[in-house]
Amino acid sequence: MTHQDITRQIISKKSYLCVGLDTDINKIPRFLLEKEYPVFEFNRAIIDATVPFAVAYKLNTAFYESLGAAGWISMEMTVDYLKKNYPDVFVIADAKRGDVGNTSRMYALAFLKNMLFDAITVAPYMGEDSVSPFLSVEGKWIILLAVTSNKGADDFQMSVQQEGSEHLWERVVRTAMNWGSLNNMMFVVGGTRPEVFGRMRKLAPEHFFLVPGIGAQGGDLKAVSSAGLTPKGGLLVNSSRAIIYADGTNRFAQVAGNMARDIQKEMEVYLSQSRVI
Amino acid sequence: MTHQDITRQIISKKSYLCVGLDTDINKIPRFLLEKEYPVFEFNRAIIDATVPFAVAYKLNTAFYESLGAAGWISMEMTVDYLKKNYPDVFVIADAKRGDVGNTSRMYALAFLKNMLFDAITVAPYMGEDSVSPFLSVEGKWIILLAVTSNKGADDFQMSVQQEGSEHLWERVVRTAMNWGSLNNMMFVVGGTRPEVFGRMRKLAPEHFFLVPGIGAQGGDLKAVSSAGLTPKGGLLVNSSRAIIYADGTNRFAQVAGNMARDIQKEMEVYLSQSRVI
Repeated sequence: MTHQDITRQIISKKSYLCVGLDTDINKIPRFLLEKEYPVFEFNRAIIDATVPFAVAYKLNTAFYESLGAAGWISMEMTVDYLKKNYPDVFVIADAKRGDVGNTSRMYALAFLKNMLFDAITVAPYMGEDSVSPFLSVEGKWIILLAVTSNKGADDFQMSVQQEGSEHLWERVVRTAMNWGSLNNMMFVVGGTRPEVFGRMRKLAPEHFFLVPGIGAQGGDLKAVSSAGLTPKGGLLVNSSRAIIYADGTNRFAQVAGNMARDIQKEMEVYLSQSRVI
Repeated sequence: MTHQDITRQIISKKSYLCVGLDTDINKIPRFLLEKEYPVFEFNRAIIDATVPFAVAYKLNTAFYESLGAAGWISMEMTVDYLKKNYPDVFVIADAKRGDVGNTSRMYALAFLKNMLFDAITVAPYMGEDSVSPFLSVEGKWIILLAVTSNKGADDFQMSVQQEGSEHLWERVVRTAMNWGSLNNMMFVVGGTRPEVFGRMRKLAPEHFFLVPGIGAQGGDLKAVSSAGLTPKGGLLVNSSRAIIYADGTNRFAQVAGNMARDIQKEMEVYLSQSRVI
C-alpha cells in the first residue's frame, strides 16, 4: 500500500481514524464467551460496524499474546478478515518490536509476510540494523516510535543531546528519515503532546504520523489535527477504548459504530479546514 | 528466583552460560520435521544435553512467532519443559517488549504469569511506566536493554547527552537503577563492546548483566568476563548459534552439549580468577 493509497482512503471516507483493537477478553460482552474465538467474534462485529468511518485498524499484540496460542489465532483471523473483506484498509501490528538484524528479519516474516499486516510499530533504541529488515519487505511499512503518549516519554525521549541541542526523539526522526521513504515509514507521535507536532512537521513535513493517546489517555483531537494535518492528510489518529468499549451489551458494535461516526464527523471538519477535502 | 539463587547455580555448575534457543525451523536437522512440534523436540534435546553446563536459557520470541500459533505452542512447551524438569534454571523471554502501562501489563501477564518465564528483556525508549508493570510481578525479573551487541547501537545508545555529558545508555542505566532492585533487574550489555563494561560496573556494581554477542556476533568471552565478573558472579553470557547449530546430523544434541561443556570449562577458569569459586 502506498502513501497515495492511504490518502485516497482518507479523502473517500473523510476520515483519518484508526480503530485500535486492544481487545481484552475481560472487557467484551459476556455472551461472546460461548464462541470458540470470542476475541475474533468481537473484532469482526466492531470492524463491520466501524469500517465506513475508519481507514486503519491497529491490533495491539500484547492483548492477543496474553491469551497464548488461541490469542495468536484470533489475531491471525482478524487480519485475514480485514484484508479479505476490506482490502483498502491499512492494518497495523502494534508490536513495538526491534532487535538485531537476524531477529528483526524473523519478526518481519511473522507480521509482514506470514500475516498480512501492512505495517508494524518498531522501537528505535537498537538503531538502523534493527529497523532495516522490516523496510526491505516490499509494499510494507514500519511505524517508528518518536514521541510516545505515556508519561515515561519524558525519561529518555525528551533528553537533550549534546550535539545539536536536540531532544533524543528529534535525533531519532532526523536519523531515521534516511532509512526509509514516504512510502514505507511513518512515525508515532503521542496525541497527549500536541506541543511537539510543530517540530515533528518541520523534520518530516510529508510523512504520515500515527497518533495514539486520543480519548482515554487525554489527547485532544482538534489540537492534534490542526498541528499535524498536511494538504495530503498525513495523519492516522487512533482511538481504542473509547470506541470498542463504548457499550457492554449486545448493542456493543452498533454503539462502537456510532462513536466512530461521531469522530469521523469531527475529522471531516478538520480535513476541510486543512483543505485535504 | 533471587539474585542469590542465580549465584548459587553459577557456583554449583561453575558456569554462567545462557543457551540461546533462537530455534529456526529451517536450520534444525531434517528428520525432526516429522514430529508434530519439531522446534520443541529440537529444544528438548538441546536442553537435556546442555543443562549440566548452563545456568540459563533464553528463548528469542521472534523465532517462535515466525511460526504462528504452532510456534507459540512450541515456546510454551519449551518453558514448561524447562521449569518442570530443571526448576533451578533461569528462563528468559528475549522479547524486547515495552509499551504504555496497560499494554506492558498484558505482556507481563503473557510472559511472566501465563507462561513461566523468570525474566523478560525490555526496551527502555518509553521510560519508567512502560517498565514498571513487569517489575510488579513478584519473583520475576526484567532485563533492560542498555548497550546492545549490534552495529545500530551506535545510532542512539552512544549519543552524548547535554546534561552530564553521558551517553544515552548511561542515562538509561543510571535512571533505571531507581526503578528496580538487585533481585528484579538486570541489564543487557553487548559482548561485542567490552570497552563499556568498566563504566557499566561503575554504574551498577552488583547487578547481573546479560551478555549477548559472544560467538557468531564476534564478542570475546575472556575480555567480557574479566571486565564484567563480580565476586558474586554478576554475569550471564549467552551463546545461541555456536551451540545449537554446532552440528546438523542426528548427533546435534551431543555436539551442542560438547560445545556448552567447552564454554563452561573456559568459564570455570574465569570464575576462579575472579574468586567467585
